[in-house]
Amino acid sequence: MIFLLFCTTYCFLLYFRIVNLLYKMIYEKEAQDIVNQRIDSYNYNLNPKGLYEPIRYILSMGGKRMRSVFTLLGCNLFDDDVSPAIDTAVGVEIFHNFTLLHDDIMDKAPMRRGMPTVHQKWNDNTAILSGDAMQIEAYRWMTKTPLHCLKPVLDLFSQTALQVCEGQQYDMDFESRSDVSLQEYINMIRLKTAVLMACSLQIGGWIGGAGDKDAHVLYDCGINLGLAFQLQDDLLDVYGSADLFGKKIGGDILCNKKTFLLILAFDKAQGETLRQLKFCTTTDTYGEQEKITIVRNIYNELNIRELCQIEIMRYYQDALQLIGELSCSQERTKPLRCFVETLMMREA
Amino acid sequence: MIFLLFCTTYCFLLYFRIVNLLYKMIYEKEAQDIVNQRIDSYNYNLNPKGLYEPIRYILSMGGKRMRSVFTLLGCNLFDDDVSPAIDTAVGVEIFHNFTLLHDDIMDKAPMRRGMPTVHQKWNDNTAILSGDAMQIEAYRWMTKTPLHCLKPVLDLFSQTALQVCEGQQYDMDFESRSDVSLQEYINMIRLKTAVLMACSLQIGGWIGGAGDKDAHVLYDCGINLGLAFQLQDDLLDVYGSADLFGKKIGGDILCNKKTFLLILAFDKAQGETLRQLKFCTTTDTYGEQEKITIVRNIYNELNIRELCQIEIMRYYQDALQLIGELSCSQERTKPLRCFVETLMMREA
Repeated sequence: MIFLLFCTTYCFLLYFRIVNLLYKMIYEKEAQDIVNQRIDSYNYNLNPKGLYEPIRYILSMGGKRMRSVFTLLGCNLFDDDVSPAIDTAVGVEIFHNFTLLHDDIMDKAPMRRGMPTVHQKWNDNTAILSGDAMQIEAYRWMTKTPLHCLKPVLDLFSQTALQVCEGQQYDMDFESRSDVSLQEYINMIRLKTAVLMACSLQIGGWIGGAGDKDAHVLYDCGINLGLAFQLQDDLLDVYGSADLFGKKIGGDILCNKKTFLLILAFDKAQGETLRQLKFCTTTDTYGEQEKITIVRNIYNELNIRELCQIEIMRYYQDALQLIGELSCSQERTKPLRCFVETLMMREA
Repeated sequence: MIFLLFCTTYCFLLYFRIVNLLYKMIYEKEAQDIVNQRIDSYNYNLNPKGLYEPIRYILSMGGKRMRSVFTLLGCNLFDDDVSPAIDTAVGVEIFHNFTLLHDDIMDKAPMRRGMPTVHQKWNDNTAILSGDAMQIEAYRWMTKTPLHCLKPVLDLFSQTALQVCEGQQYDMDFESRSDVSLQEYINMIRLKTAVLMACSLQIGGWIGGAGDKDAHVLYDCGINLGLAFQLQDDLLDVYGSADLFGKKIGGDILCNKKTFLLILAFDKAQGETLRQLKFCTTTDTYGEQEKITIVRNIYNELNIRELCQIEIMRYYQDALQLIGELSCSQERTKPLRCFVETLMMREA
């Protein structure tokens, strides 16, 4: 019996040793470090200071570097060497940070990752112009993509970047509408959030040498991950822990933001509950904490939390299933699966 | 004698006939039409309207299409067929219009080419986001550049676009400074205006097949043209005709803008004139027309108009001399020379 256990353990260890020798795989943390190092190597300590200092500032705030991690993991699925994808990954990350900078002006947001936003620390003009320069910087890095896939990468990136703007426009349009459907909402977050994740993953795959079929699978996988990620954000805004989430809980409720939860609640609510929800989202009668409590109670009554969690898990499961359809060995997909599992468990 | 005259005329006509048969050359007007047609073919009648309608609006305002004309004429110096350069030319033009859109927000300008600016007609958020989308559109068109020079074209374009942002930042920085030197001013307009013209011309040359030496000559030529063009703008603001110039005369004087003329005047003025100029640019005592008259009189006294004209002609002559250094036949340079001469004579 002990001998059998010994043999099994030995075989198991041997198997992993062989896998590690066969494949050079990087995980989320390593990918994040690679991207941060490359960003730090270019410290934007340039003149005129008024243009470059805000870029350095927002890039130094950190963050999950999720999109660039997707690019590196996407590349690593098909190639041991991720170095040809690093500059492209940085480009995607800078573009994402540019969208945050300009979105913060439009939303008049005072804080980002616990620090004053650029337009708050400097002013609107500085934030507009530095953002413009960041978008150019994003393209400058993207143009370092290996020549063999430069054109398709840039075409997909431009299409995606435009869609992100479309998503932001729909999001702003929704503010003055009271008839936003769940389908419209999902389409908006697909544009605003999911397409850039999908693009990051597909571009990484391309650089690594993925064929058309795998590239499309990666794109679809990214869409599912992006949708799940945004729905989680909506959920964490109501049910998260302020300490972990890094921003005030209930912010979406206070500004009557049409999130997945609110639209779903309006779909489900009837009679007195519906009347209460309508009143609550159109009046200034309640104090902040009171309003949050009332809306949360309605959500609880309607099972919104669970329904949202089911939806999130469905997207994550679809993403994992798509990973299983990739033509590379399943061993190689391990870092990406691990990353997806980390995202599934996230509380921030 | 009559026979001799006949022979000379015949030879002359024959020569031009041969040249026209040998080369297919396009002039400014034709280049402008080509670009406008391509822009019109893509009418930006897309959803969401809030994002694309302002893009359609600003592109339909027209304008000289100078930068895209440079790209087509630059290409035509080395190739009869300019069609491979059209999309790139449109990209450059869209980028230029994007900078106008965002500059207008920063300058709080109410009018552009006799029509309300985008942020005035819609609002700041719409202008920011539509501008962002236009910058992406610019890159989307630029990426249609023929593959053989896609990477160098994009690298030069990104470097240039960043420099344009730097120029805009210096321009804003100068507003709160009283010690701006002529050299600093020339550097600012080189970045804000000249480099994009230089880039447009060089990119056109590259697409047409220009070698490194010619490409650099074209770039330097564009810099000279850009500097001359901006100094003309400064001059027209004071001495132009409101009807032709299309905007109010004396606008720069009223907002104490540090133009070439004002900085030069501060350099030249002494004694009572200097005191008067200082007072005039720091006080609110005078009415609009009165202030314009006083400053214009000081300029007249100090010969600023002539000094500025000399500078402008020097840059234009340098540009023409550089055109003479190109390795292509001098016949082929005729449309570019004609265009430069049109610019030299411009009153608007």
